Amino acid sequence: MSSGGAPGGAVIRVVVDAMGGDYAPQETVKGAIQALRPARAPDRAPLLQLTLVGDTDLLEPELAKYDLSGLPLTVVPSVGKIGDDEHPVQALRRKPLASIVVATKLLKSARADALVSMGSTGASMTTAAMILGLMEGLERPCIGGPFLGLAPRIVLVDMGSNLDCRPPLLLSFAALGAVFAHKFLGIENPRIGLLSIGTEAAKGNRQVQASYRLFQQSHLNFVGNLEGMDFFTDRADVIVCDGFVGNILLKFTEGLGTAFLRYLGKNLSPLLSPEDLGRLSADLLQMTNLPRRTGGPLLGVKGAVIVGHGSSRSDGVAGAIGTAVRFVGLGLVDSMREELSQIYRGDLARPSHSPI
Amino acid sequence: MSSGGAPGGAVIRVVVDAMGGDYAPQETVKGAIQALRPARAPDRAPLLQLTLVGDTDLLEPELAKYDLSGLPLTVVPSVGKIGDDEHPVQALRRKPLASIVVATKLLKSARADALVSMGSTGASMTTAAMILGLMEGLERPCIGGPFLGLAPRIVLVDMGSNLDCRPPLLLSFAALGAVFAHKFLGIENPRIGLLSIGTEAAKGNRQVQASYRLFQQSHLNFVGNLEGMDFFTDRADVIVCDGFVGNILLKFTEGLGTAFLRYLGKNLSPLLSPEDLGRLSADLLQMTNLPRRTGGPLLGVKGAVIVGHGSSRSDGVAGAIGTAVRFVGLGLVDSMREELSQIYRGDLARPSHSPI
Repeated sequence: MSSGGAPGGAVIRVVVDAMGGDYAPQETVKGAIQALRPARAPDRAPLLQLTLVGDTDLLEPELAKYDLSGLPLTVVPSVGKIGDDEHPVQALRRKPLASIVVATKLLKSARADALVSMGSTGASMTTAAMILGLMEGLERPCIGGPFLGLAPRIVLVDMGSNLDCRPPLLLSFAALGAVFAHKFLGIENPRIGLLSIGTEAAKGNRQVQASYRLFQQSHLNFVGNLEGMDFFTDRADVIVCDGFVGNILLKFTEGLGTAFLRYLGKNLSPLLSPEDLGRLSADLLQMTNLPRRTGGPLLGVKGAVIVGHGSSRSDGVAGAIGTAVRFVGLGLVDSMREELSQIYRGDLARPSHSPI
Repeated sequence: MSSGGAPGGAVIRVVVDAMGGDYAPQETVKGAIQALRPARAPDRAPLLQLTLVGDTDLLEPELAKYDLSGLPLTVVPSVGKIGDDEHPVQALRRKPLASIVVATKLLKSARADALVSMGSTGASMTTAAMILGLMEGLERPCIGGPFLGLAPRIVLVDMGSNLDCRPPLLLSFAALGAVFAHKFLGIENPRIGLLSIGTEAAKGNRQVQASYRLFQQSHLNFVGNLEGMDFFTDRADVIVCDGFVGNILLKFTEGLGTAFLRYLGKNLSPLLSPEDLGRLSADLLQMTNLPRRTGGPLLGVKGAVIVGHGSSRSDGVAGAIGTAVRFVGLGLVDSMREELSQIYRGDLARPSHSPI
């Protein structure tokens, strides 16, 4: 498995779970081809090679729609897929040839540098944890990254539905989020905050109160408790909560964005041209769901895995592939392993230490 | 204490904590006078009498700005106020003459039918619980009601920052929310849902999983687990979560609304007239914070208490007074006591029973 990132100018090989997502394989195939034909600055983009994993009888008719000559695209066959409605661990055993399993094994065996899937997040997380393994000391992986176009430099961890997280797990998520904010977003010494219901140390449920003490002892640049509005106040760069709250926020925002669009459509259609309204609507969708465009990285597994929104269209697939390329190029997996090892060495109490 | 509501056509007496809120007493006084001079259908409105509680040296100059002749408005003096930054229980002991304490005692002694405060929510809740008392069997009060102008018929409980709620407490909140949805919003047999991260019974943290079983055994019209987007999908009328999640959602939505406004202001100012943009902005603010306009009722205390947003201006104060009048007129306190007693009698398992 290649976790250290490609050296400058090297080829980056991304494997795509072509069966994952509500519109697979049509949109996964289309998105893959889009990613291979970047609209701008193709000479500056790293060389990308793609492998599509899926049922060949379903993939071939889709691929036949395009002129593939010269494109660095190969297909690896798999059988079936794991759905959102299946128990990931059981499904993994029952379907050893499912697309996400075959794709993850390609990453594990170093035949790819990164994996992208729009399929069941639970299946992607479980498969990655079981096949690639977790970084040393970590109990569970998380999903972290910007989630709001309106606050594109705020990293939220966990969006990966980890429930009932104990404080040390939240601290690990914070460390992973800090590396992401530093390396991927270029934020020096990222400020870490705990999502709560007030900014004072005593404000919060038992989980937050216990985490507060632990975060204070760590070498992270912990700025204290935050409130819901602090996604928009520039008090922190990384906002940490457990996956119960993170998932509720993510889906709430998505629903709210759609409701806003309906509201604006009704109220602005007499005032704006259809073109202006259409542009505004498209923008607003991204404002309320950034991962739909970029995918969200799975943090804490020994490999570069980007999970996308299940309802992604080709743009979202291409965007997630782009995220995977950057993730590999920046060597994020190695940085995160180092950062976590520092947490687990118990080397927590150096207040002046940079978080990265 | 008058908890049964005023009979048709009777006078409803509301006491206002005139010192509570960021813009008190200017805006509380202005809002009170606004409420006494309804712009529309004054003949059909119930007869309203107001008592303002506050430091007289601060109130008098404000009152002197208005022609009060003929207005049913009296002033009761108090000394000081309890701030957001104070520990409510300690502050209550230290400041026995604070405005919220004096106002709550007026309600307790039946010299008012309802109380409205824009001051510290913690202080209002604690004072109400200690002076008015909680409904039988209840551990803590909650705040419930619609919170989104984009989903004005969805009741959220708890918005009152009750943390680490055990399942029976969440069930009580659900019962109180159901009465509110039925009586205040006119929804027959309100559908109750638990906010979680998936709709299946097994999806959710430990709190939600244990609550699910209890809710199923109750006589409430429980429709199962919900996700964040279900504030906008008409799957339930009452959405139940603990106050940690509720408060985060409330403040997140407020911050998001403000960020949206900034975004729209920037993007629409070349396309819309300043008047149209101003109207849209004002509408949008209400879309993302309904309690700012209407106040939120404190549920589970033996009296009608409406708490408003700390940053309310006069419109919000008048709106909260209007909510108080309706709350009293509908006899909500008595209905809620009956509903709770049914929960606590252990009379939980009649599936065909109406929740109200």
